[in-house]
Amino acid sequence: MMTFEIKHRDAMGRIGILNINGKKIETPTIMPVIHPNQKKQIVSMDLINKLADVIITNSYITYKTKHLREIAEEKGIHKLIGFDKVIVTDSGSFQLGVYGDIDVKPLEIIEFQERIGVDVGTILDIPTPPDVDREKAEKDLEETLRRAKASIELKKERGFKLLLNGTIQGSTYLDLRQKSAKEMAKLGFDIYPIGAVVPLMEQYRYKDVAEIIINSKMYLPTNKPVHLFGCGHPMLFALAVALGCDLFDSAAYALYAKDDRYLTERGTLHLDELKDLKAFPCSCPVCSEYTPKELASLNKKDRERLLAEHNLYVTFEEINRIKQAIRDGSLWELVEERCRCHPKLLEGYRVLRKYMDYIEKFDPVTKKSAFFYSGVESMFRPEVLRHKKRLKRIKYEKVYITTVSSSIEKPYHENLNVVETDVDILIKDPVFGFIPYYIDTVYPLSQHEVPELFDHEKEMNNEFIDEFVNWLKKKIGEDNILDIMTYNYYINYFSANKKIDADALRIRKMLQYQYGFDIIDDELMDKIKVVRSKTTGRLRQVLDENGNILFSVRSNDNMLIPSEKGAKLLWEKIPFPKYRVVVNKEAEAFAREGRNVFAKFVVDCDGELRPYEEVLVVNEDDELLAYGTTILNGIELREFNYGLAVKVRGGIKKYEEI
Amino acid sequence: MMTFEIKHRDAMGRIGILNINGKKIETPTIMPVIHPNQKKQIVSMDLINKLADVIITNSYITYKTKHLREIAEEKGIHKLIGFDKVIVTDSGSFQLGVYGDIDVKPLEIIEFQERIGVDVGTILDIPTPPDVDREKAEKDLEETLRRAKASIELKKERGFKLLLNGTIQGSTYLDLRQKSAKEMAKLGFDIYPIGAVVPLMEQYRYKDVAEIIINSKMYLPTNKPVHLFGCGHPMLFALAVALGCDLFDSAAYALYAKDDRYLTERGTLHLDELKDLKAFPCSCPVCSEYTPKELASLNKKDRERLLAEHNLYVTFEEINRIKQAIRDGSLWELVEERCRCHPKLLEGYRVLRKYMDYIEKFDPVTKKSAFFYSGVESMFRPEVLRHKKRLKRIKYEKVYITTVSSSIEKPYHENLNVVETDVDILIKDPVFGFIPYYIDTVYPLSQHEVPELFDHEKEMNNEFIDEFVNWLKKKIGEDNILDIMTYNYYINYFSANKKIDADALRIRKMLQYQYGFDIIDDELMDKIKVVRSKTTGRLRQVLDENGNILFSVRSNDNMLIPSEKGAKLLWEKIPFPKYRVVVNKEAEAFAREGRNVFAKFVVDCDGELRPYEEVLVVNEDDELLAYGTTILNGIELREFNYGLAVKVRGGIKKYEEI
Ligand SMILES: [Mg+2]
Ligand SMILES: [Mg+2]
Ligand SMILES: [Zn+2]
Ligand SMILES: [Zn+2]
Repeated sequence: MMTFEIKHRDAMGRIGILNINGKKIETPTIMPVIHPNQKKQIVSMDLINKLADVIITNSYITYKTKHLREIAEEKGIHKLIGFDKVIVTDSGSFQLGVYGDIDVKPLEIIEFQERIGVDVGTILDIPTPPDVDREKAEKDLEETLRRAKASIELKKERGFKLLLNGTIQGSTYLDLRQKSAKEMAKLGFDIYPIGAVVPLMEQYRYKDVAEIIINSKMYLPTNKPVHLFGCGHPMLFALAVALGCDLFDSAAYALYAKDDRYLTERGTLHLDELKDLKAFPCSCPVCSEYTPKELASLNKKDRERLLAEHNLYVTFEEINRIKQAIRDGSLWELVEERCRCHPKLLEGYRVLRKYMDYIEKFDPVTKKSAFFYSGVESMFRPEVLRHKKRLKRIKYEKVYITTVSSSIEKPYHENLNVVETDVDILIKDPVFGFIPYYIDTVYPLSQHEVPELFDHEKEMNNEFIDEFVNWLKKKIGEDNILDIMTYNYYINYFSANKKIDADALRIRKMLQYQYGFDIIDDELMDKIKVVRSKTTGRLRQVLDENGNILFSVRSNDNMLIPSEKGAKLLWEKIPFPKYRVVVNKEAEAFAREGRNVFAKFVVDCDGELRPYEEVLVVNEDDELLAYGTTILNGIELREFNYGLAVKVRGGIKKYEEI
Repeated sequence: MMTFEIKHRDAMGRIGILNINGKKIETPTIMPVIHPNQKKQIVSMDLINKLADVIITNSYITYKTKHLREIAEEKGIHKLIGFDKVIVTDSGSFQLGVYGDIDVKPLEIIEFQERIGVDVGTILDIPTPPDVDREKAEKDLEETLRRAKASIELKKERGFKLLLNGTIQGSTYLDLRQKSAKEMAKLGFDIYPIGAVVPLMEQYRYKDVAEIIINSKMYLPTNKPVHLFGCGHPMLFALAVALGCDLFDSAAYALYAKDDRYLTERGTLHLDELKDLKAFPCSCPVCSEYTPKELASLNKKDRERLLAEHNLYVTFEEINRIKQAIRDGSLWELVEERCRCHPKLLEGYRVLRKYMDYIEKFDPVTKKSAFFYSGVESMFRPEVLRHKKRLKRIKYEKVYITTVSSSIEKPYHENLNVVETDVDILIKDPVFGFIPYYIDTVYPLSQHEVPELFDHEKEMNNEFIDEFVNWLKKKIGEDNILDIMTYNYYINYFSANKKIDADALRIRKMLQYQYGFDIIDDELMDKIKVVRSKTTGRLRQVLDENGNILFSVRSNDNMLIPSEKGAKLLWEKIPFPKYRVVVNKEAEAFAREGRNVFAKFVVDCDGELRPYEEVLVVNEDDELLAYGTTILNGIELREFNYGLAVKVRGGIKKYEEI
């Protein structure tokens, strides 16, 4: 039995709860590789038990080694390893990759894994190396898919309890990786490892690794964990998690130690490079106890064990750092730091630009922490891309395009002395393209930090700016667009010049930007009242003509959070299925009571929803049941059938109940 | 008594041995701020003793607190604090900054610091805040300088044993910081703190901090440690060390803990942001023992102590990381990572571009590790700047300018199929401007990693390329420069077409690049023999006509390392004082015996020398005494009077001795 649900998220990364046979694992996490022969295991199982909730070991070695096999068959793999939590086994496909041939049949090893009580077994897939002939890659993939199908059928037929890893192959052919993902997805595996990337990582081909991950992820079910097979270097975790990998395995902690290599989150050092330092650049129990000199002078066995322990500590440390970043909404920031550890890793990050349209769908619309610019790469981030798309959601009639000095602090409207009219003011911005004056408090338009830019950086958005202005010209006509040179004209003639309520206009524009529809029409404009905080002067609430709250302005991101009345207004103004999560009859009563909506009750939704958007929960007749925040995006809402989908703020009672 | 010597270095950073009253401190390091009242000290002195070789405490508080003063006067400050190693004291100028007035006279506090046995005391300077009127900054500085002079005079007059901190002030006026440094330098203090930067750091004004450091450093003696006063956040250490700061003090570890804040090398987290994590993103003894939840649930006092301990561990951890980077020659890489932690820190890094001409003088000419490109900022690094300058050292006659596909691996001459003639081939490079074909193995031209670049990055060197080509045109005439379109012409007509020994030409060009002079002239060209390794095919040695070694080619950086014969050749071909370190009579015999040259014997040198260059040791009559590697640059060779100056490879016997 396996369930998987998303608890927190950032980029394509997620903190998930993976429940396997009643044992809980918080993802992303790392599975230490444990040798089935305890004598060959250099780090004590005590430490493994302390740090890890899941380990991975090798079923093929267990199968081939008489005394290990006997214990495993008699007492089970958990006793053999000395680990009660989740045990994943590899199938021997690594050995197949290394030796070209192995001594077990694909279904035989599945049966064996079931027999010894493995929690998650692996099919005996064919690990195709990078850069092979396309013909070979195709042939290997066909064989892997054949075995995958047979394994799943065997499992069903015989009612096996073990969960199965369905490994994605396809060498460096991205279309074959896509095909592999699609076909494996159809077979319904429990976890999807991405296989045969180790040779690429050994060659620092992180660009290929990144592309393989994305091209696999695109066609894998979003509700299943993805395991980047063979990736154990902490330097790579942040990028891989940001691309949606949930599980890693590390033989690295032990293999590197064997070679006197010391892992860090920034790369690898050889003990030789450290031994003249007064102290280690780490505070783990090993590094706090030994000086580099002391450690270097120990016998090989002790040294290896201590280095492996250190390696394991820093490996988990980086996982914890990533989890913190996901909760904080600063995973991209961490990725952008880590990608400076090696130029090839930066290359791996830069290639994401090609896939940002896809990645953006998974990136939360709001984050706790500010957007930090770390270099031109930041300009291609999903937060920026989404803003550029959503700029077109605003209903423009007349537009005044201008620039402001970089010394003016954000939000602009608090620091600029501008005549406020019904004309949209677009302020050119080197990162975000344009910041519309009336929505300038909305995340990330005031919640970002950018250093003084170089000239070439300031020009990077020119293409977007031209494109957008052309779109605008087509939309509202050239005559309705004024540029910076014409401020006096703007002031004196351009606007309809009627007295406007700037705050009401602000709310109207913010809602256009947030939902893509004009929630506050001309009529409502005259009726609503916008309340600012008496202490901070910041936007706080939107009231209707009777003084009822329609929306609250959330202070950290200035997103508009509807009340029940606000939700009803949204429901009236936004056509189905936009901003809807549709649930079945079973969930209706719960939703109306204001209880959270779980994924298994969702039957449909607005496919374009992003995580953390404010949504309407409706039934299949589009009756409004509740309103709240979606944890999942439009793709996931349809695919997940476990865990929370919408955190409900309030339910809507049936008319007859009131 | 204080001595200070440089052991290892990178950027403007250095690992130094600071010996104070017989107690050794390895710099860079951090001085924990210790409260003179042990009851107010939240971290145990056991841990402080374990981690720190030097602490800083407050002499004014000690002076003003009766029972502390009594103990200090009776038993000495070391007993009061419970710390036998080096104790530095602040003078109360922080309190002066905060309260505007304090209760002690400038000379009184100097006397007091001496009386209680402080190792390094501080003058009572005036800490001028940022952005004050220039008049105030000037007035304050005059007063600081007056007090500094009086303090130094008092010390001399009375034969005080204590060493003195001479703090640099001047607010945010860079010319006043320069003036302050110049004047304080004249007075001969032992250590130079850079003062009043805390308000800037609190406001994230790292650009101002960086500029203040550089403008101070430029006029401070290179042989004295510099202390960045009040800088205790590990995130800032790498940049500050790269700019030549040797000492930091941290009250932060305790102050942040008081506020439930958790330091990391990447920034600060509040315990609230951590408390829902399963485990801390750190492996220090505290974080290995407690979960965030457990720590958060402790009483205030225990929580504060444990957080302070964690904060102290990560603070020292970053210092160790920096030391490792200095030894590895990868300090810039670490700085470029850390500067991605906050956009304002990136801004602080970017401003260095303005000062690179100065910084480059201190940056080693060769490094153990490769140059890693982390973004356009890397293009302004000293390694690149130096190459662009040294390109002009090559003696060009005919030049062929070309480009090669980015898929060709470096070094080019091993992977390109090019007709080798006596024509210089300059290969355009987006980072280094040009890579001359014949020196393409020399550091950093083959020892760098660059990701696939964006188009705008490829264009960033266009200005330099134009400028260089113009220089070349003036130098050798337009007719002697061919471009990429004319390969056939290059092959068929352009070269003198005589048979050349490409490896001899390679050595000739490498020596031009390394020394700026034509060591191998036309005559020698026919005589030397270049030996390549039979196993690797790489350049190994340069022999004279009799088969004697002139130069060895160092494998990691392909710098030419002279033998005795090679050194004599260099001495003949390079005019005095170029590449010379001149020593006095006293050192002559030692040098001739091949013993290392110490700084106190150096009387003059080539002021343009860079650290780690291969130099000639001569006497004042320019007689060659020895040859070796200089640890110091041309400025430091003149200023240092303690520690190693030239690591001698071999001495030259007097003619009569042979
Ligand atoms: Mg952030
Ligand atoms: Mg390096
Ligand atoms: Zn460690
Ligand atoms: Zn810690």
